[in-house]
Amino acid sequence: MRVAVLAHEKFPDRAKTAVGLLRYADYEVEAVLDRDNAGKRVSDFVDDVQDAPIVAEMADAPEVDALIVGIAPIGGGFDESWRSDVTTALERGCDLISGLHYFLEDDEEFARLADENDADIWDVRRPPEDLSVAQGVADEVEAEVVLTVGTDCSVGKMTATMELLEAARERGADVGFVPTGQTGIMIENWGTPIDRVVSDFTAGAVEEMILERGDDHDYLFVEGQGSIVHPAYSAVTCGILHGSMADRLVLCHEAGREAIHGYEDTAVPPLADYVDLYEDLARPVHETEVVAGALNTWEIADDAAARDAVETFADELDAPATDPVRFGDADDDGIDAVLEAIL
Amino acid sequence: MRVAVLAHEKFPDRAKTAVGLLRYADYEVEAVLDRDNAGKRVSDFVDDVQDAPIVAEMADAPEVDALIVGIAPIGGGFDESWRSDVTTALERGCDLISGLHYFLEDDEEFARLADENDADIWDVRRPPEDLSVAQGVADEVEAEVVLTVGTDCSVGKMTATMELLEAARERGADVGFVPTGQTGIMIENWGTPIDRVVSDFTAGAVEEMILERGDDHDYLFVEGQGSIVHPAYSAVTCGILHGSMADRLVLCHEAGREAIHGYEDTAVPPLADYVDLYEDLARPVHETEVVAGALNTWEIADDAAARDAVETFADELDAPATDPVRFGDADDDGIDAVLEAIL
Repeated sequence: MRVAVLAHEKFPDRAKTAVGLLRYADYEVEAVLDRDNAGKRVSDFVDDVQDAPIVAEMADAPEVDALIVGIAPIGGGFDESWRSDVTTALERGCDLISGLHYFLEDDEEFARLADENDADIWDVRRPPEDLSVAQGVADEVEAEVVLTVGTDCSVGKMTATMELLEAARERGADVGFVPTGQTGIMIENWGTPIDRVVSDFTAGAVEEMILERGDDHDYLFVEGQGSIVHPAYSAVTCGILHGSMADRLVLCHEAGREAIHGYEDTAVPPLADYVDLYEDLARPVHETEVVAGALNTWEIADDAAARDAVETFADELDAPATDPVRFGDADDDGIDAVLEAIL
Repeated sequence: MRVAVLAHEKFPDRAKTAVGLLRYADYEVEAVLDRDNAGKRVSDFVDDVQDAPIVAEMADAPEVDALIVGIAPIGGGFDESWRSDVTTALERGCDLISGLHYFLEDDEEFARLADENDADIWDVRRPPEDLSVAQGVADEVEAEVVLTVGTDCSVGKMTATMELLEAARERGADVGFVPTGQTGIMIENWGTPIDRVVSDFTAGAVEEMILERGDDHDYLFVEGQGSIVHPAYSAVTCGILHGSMADRLVLCHEAGREAIHGYEDTAVPPLADYVDLYEDLARPVHETEVVAGALNTWEIADDAAARDAVETFADELDAPATDPVRFGDADDDGIDAVLEAIL
């Protein structure tokens, strides 16, 4: 599927979804819309993803099958300056894919244009209506379930999950992906936005996905959300932990993070405490173990220093670890040890 | 406010909400609607709550200000056999209060009748629309926050909370009540149904209530939900634990419960494990302690055996405990020790 990705004024650093799609999705990205960078190319900013021209508006984009809104402003609202891009896309018969909290399907003009031009609107963040409470049966699937868990939000759980997924598949493992957030759902073209479901159905929504795919693969890699000690998002994390009944956990952390992002009074506890907490909390529902770690060393400029940080991290977890982005090459010892622990 | 309470075919054993209202609410219950028991009285079944006649239908009920739906069938749907009771109530100008998942306000006939007769419909389970993520500031209120936490669902957290609240107030303490479920919300005439909010807002919805009332009282007693080891509902429990930033916890348990209700493969862990788990999970966000226990000894016929069970429970928690329903009299040593630990 050929797509254009809207990322006005945010590409690449504040367009996590757009960059995730460029890096991991099977879509052919024909253009990125960013009026601030029109005329440049993706490769001028990010070098290890598929390349595409950057254009000022949808009218300048080549023929595509869909327009994807690839940014998520704080609050998740729709920016009216994007309206002409969306209407242009719909008038051209393109489908619309959006991860905004504001549902484009509920916009009268968009709904009418979609109808007139036989285009579909997929609001990725709208949860399905038939969710229910967990039955506690996710452990009955044939696949081994591996869940990424975090020390905080935005430490790179989705990225770590995708990198480990690709590395495992390169080694011949049969791994399915269970996305729980908007970017993962767009990449996989399937999934439920766990942070948007009714709280009583948090575990149930994860379980439903595990049951749907769990007998098709040897392994399922489940994208984690938030952190079990997060002042705002721990409910989502806890629901995913119990709903997935994960067999193995991979703890994700960002090097140097000392306080919970946005909650600077809340210190990041010692890493060994996270291991105990995730394992102790999971145990009564389903026994599990932190078998490996993924460290995001983005902020460390020097490779040797990053290697040291990974080593310290592995010692603290008492488990193999790597930075799967930085040191994820197929011939790297670190990722081998991590995959051996996971698979 | 004078009310009638609908509890057809379920009163009293499967009408938890109706019995809770009779026991704890300030409403004057003028009639209970139960077509199976028409002609009898509440006192024929339950002896320690306000008394009222039981009638077959709303047409037989005396003048009231509101009709409350006091049962919650599995799935929370509306039973069409209740329709004439509801329409009769609305035609008489009575307000309607319902805790069903099915929102009566969205029923065309009810909405029209309410409009015509100047009656209000309050769907207790509909969460407010302006919820948001927690800011992690519930600890800034002046009140000490006390949260009831459970070993499982349906162990009597709401009842324990209400009994401790009444006992504390009898001793002169200034205590506010923070309800999180439908019965508590009906009793308090205020509150947010935490199990129905968007999962990302679980902690935030609790925090908002704490902030709203936390400077008006010396203590806030927060009604807990679910259990931190529940296969389906732990997300809600975790969100309440972190969102409330509770200063003290009261662990609620039902004597003899050995497996999670409805999830018989999931054993109830040792009680000391619950203490560690709740405290360890809370600590990174806000340090807290299980200071007391409430044991539901309903299933134990003999008072002496119930006292033994309470003593064993207290030993396992290493904290004072009681059954606040059975041994909640003002002159009982057990409840004194529990309140001393809480206040």
